[in-house]
Amino acid sequence: MAKRLMFEKPLGMRDTLPFFYKQKKTIRNKLTEAIDAYGYSFMDTPLLEYYETVGEVSATSNQQLFKLLDQQGHSLVLRPDLTAPIARVAASQMKEAQFPLRLAYDGPVFRAQQKEGGKPAQFEQVGTELIGDHSIYGDAEVIALLVESLREAGLEDFQITVGHIGYVRAFFQEFLGEDQDATDELMGYLYRKNYVGYREAVDSLPLNEENKRALKELLKLRGSDEIFSESKSLARNQGCLQAINELKQLHKLLKNYQVGDYVSFDLNLISHMHYYTGVLFEGYAPNLGSLLCNGGRYDKLLPSFQLNASATGFAVHLERLVEAIGASNGQDQRVGVLFDDDSFKAALDAARALRAEGKKVLMQHVDQIIDLEQFQAALEEVVDVTQTGGFFDE
Amino acid sequence: MAKRLMFEKPLGMRDTLPFFYKQKKTIRNKLTEAIDAYGYSFMDTPLLEYYETVGEVSATSNQQLFKLLDQQGHSLVLRPDLTAPIARVAASQMKEAQFPLRLAYDGPVFRAQQKEGGKPAQFEQVGTELIGDHSIYGDAEVIALLVESLREAGLEDFQITVGHIGYVRAFFQEFLGEDQDATDELMGYLYRKNYVGYREAVDSLPLNEENKRALKELLKLRGSDEIFSESKSLARNQGCLQAINELKQLHKLLKNYQVGDYVSFDLNLISHMHYYTGVLFEGYAPNLGSLLCNGGRYDKLLPSFQLNASATGFAVHLERLVEAIGASNGQDQRVGVLFDDDSFKAALDAARALRAEGKKVLMQHVDQIIDLEQFQAALEEVVDVTQTGGFFDE
Repeated sequence: MAKRLMFEKPLGMRDTLPFFYKQKKTIRNKLTEAIDAYGYSFMDTPLLEYYETVGEVSATSNQQLFKLLDQQGHSLVLRPDLTAPIARVAASQMKEAQFPLRLAYDGPVFRAQQKEGGKPAQFEQVGTELIGDHSIYGDAEVIALLVESLREAGLEDFQITVGHIGYVRAFFQEFLGEDQDATDELMGYLYRKNYVGYREAVDSLPLNEENKRALKELLKLRGSDEIFSESKSLARNQGCLQAINELKQLHKLLKNYQVGDYVSFDLNLISHMHYYTGVLFEGYAPNLGSLLCNGGRYDKLLPSFQLNASATGFAVHLERLVEAIGASNGQDQRVGVLFDDDSFKAALDAARALRAEGKKVLMQHVDQIIDLEQFQAALEEVVDVTQTGGFFDE
Repeated sequence: MAKRLMFEKPLGMRDTLPFFYKQKKTIRNKLTEAIDAYGYSFMDTPLLEYYETVGEVSATSNQQLFKLLDQQGHSLVLRPDLTAPIARVAASQMKEAQFPLRLAYDGPVFRAQQKEGGKPAQFEQVGTELIGDHSIYGDAEVIALLVESLREAGLEDFQITVGHIGYVRAFFQEFLGEDQDATDELMGYLYRKNYVGYREAVDSLPLNEENKRALKELLKLRGSDEIFSESKSLARNQGCLQAINELKQLHKLLKNYQVGDYVSFDLNLISHMHYYTGVLFEGYAPNLGSLLCNGGRYDKLLPSFQLNASATGFAVHLERLVEAIGASNGQDQRVGVLFDDDSFKAALDAARALRAEGKKVLMQHVDQIIDLEQFQAALEEVVDVTQTGGFFDE
């Protein structure tokens, strides 16, 4: 093999060594148990899909899709999320009569990376989809379940920021009318969370000072439920009022769920330029530089699979959750039983007895160990039966 | 979206719906717990690797590899197995001083398919790698662990057939000498388990009748440990005798492990044309048309990563194991709590109480249900709190 790439991995690809694997498994189990407890059914879809089927309608930009050609010349993608594949399944193999559907997933997704040292190109998402429940109770359930799952997984300090894309759209319509270019430009700044750029763009628009001031005031509409009343001094059109009413009802339901302390509101939140159609949210942990989880209501995806249904859900970035929770004491608790040619049977008996106590036990012939001291250092305990001898069933 | 591919998946790709997902998870957990108990550490590697790094050295034929190009023009593969990637990690990130290494994995692997209705192009492998233990104790441990894992997972009726590639090579050398073409041809027939073709090929070789008879007698060397003595009347060269001695010792160790009843021997077993270098094995279940699991000792892979170590391991095809074990009573045991606008708080309280009993509970606003009867039919029990009313924290 050429030496150049011998130990290399493709851009953004990472190995999961035993220590991190174990932490991830522990946290994944707690997360999925919490989701199970809410009556969601886990399912899975293939890692490869037709670009035409789920690539085009996914929330991931074309540039970030891993594309390949199959032997028939079809364009394939490594799935960038599980929302579009689950929509495909819900619309084809699941009976509408049992709607609303509560589905969940846990698996790797892919985002192609452009440069070294960037984000991982493969990561694991644990998430839920509530399909066919058009009510605010559905939005509340998804956010409450997200909060409870994160807490069950062991995360204590985090915040879910909730917005409403209907509010943003109606707000811009009030001040920018049908000027789609200006709307897209300002929404782009909000999406990128570039508030300096947003203010400058507002200043350069041909608007009167009062409207410019209002557009900039939008940035202040974040925090507790007090912003609902504050928002009324800025925009009073039907769309804004309806969105605020939904958020107020959502807030009430979340207080009933006793998860209100983890939730704040942000009326300029835009998690995606086109995907969401109602309530949307993002979750952050203080020690984490990047998004921990997100979700919201999307109404256009299922109709693209000829299913007239609204849906809402969340996705948690599992590796980031593990990072946010921090290293637990996941030390490798294995016992080693050392034997030689004469003590194999004694080693077997010892290993069996220890395993019956629930211990993880490896058996090792001493002749195969390169460095006994280092070998022992990796173990919790070592049982040496090489002196026992004589126990061997011929 | 174009209608043509709307609900389609790429060739050989399958969805895992909730019922099968649950069965698979239950069986996966038992399997990985059994492997854990033997002191193996689970790890994972990326789904994408450089072709140059792991594609070339994997046991999978080029034609079955899923290849794609990354944005830098490198040729990538979707991993066809985890043995080569784990060899890459063992040779680069793990300290030789702690050898022997006991590693395990569980994840999807890929084999491109050429036609509709064929084998799955993505399936899940659970497996182990024992790296740096060159002894027959290592071979015995891997086979014993395979048997115990399958039993723990719930499989009762299965057979592990054990062979030795050293025997086959020495046997052919005795009768075919250095005729590599004839050797490759006969080994090819054994690899494809085409015994009729094998006999015909033997007949067409320019050999005396006695040698032809011996070559055909090789096919009879399968069954219990009685074949070890039978083999001596056919070939008595050093290579054959050494392989038989290893198998005899292996057999003794497996009896000590108390797994002897699950093991038979087959001296013409060839699981792969080039990969294995010593003891090798395949596992079958009677109701399964295809291979359930396989493995063996391979000595050439780690040196190709500049690590001078022998290794042995097994891989279980998880979906086939689920099929072999058969459908358990995995009925969806969820409780539904139905509420309306006035009874949300009562529903929350009811759901919380039921979840505290360990039940999986979904809450559903009645107005969102399309067909109440079918919705209820999918649940174990339905608690209707819509008549309760009056419980709502404002």
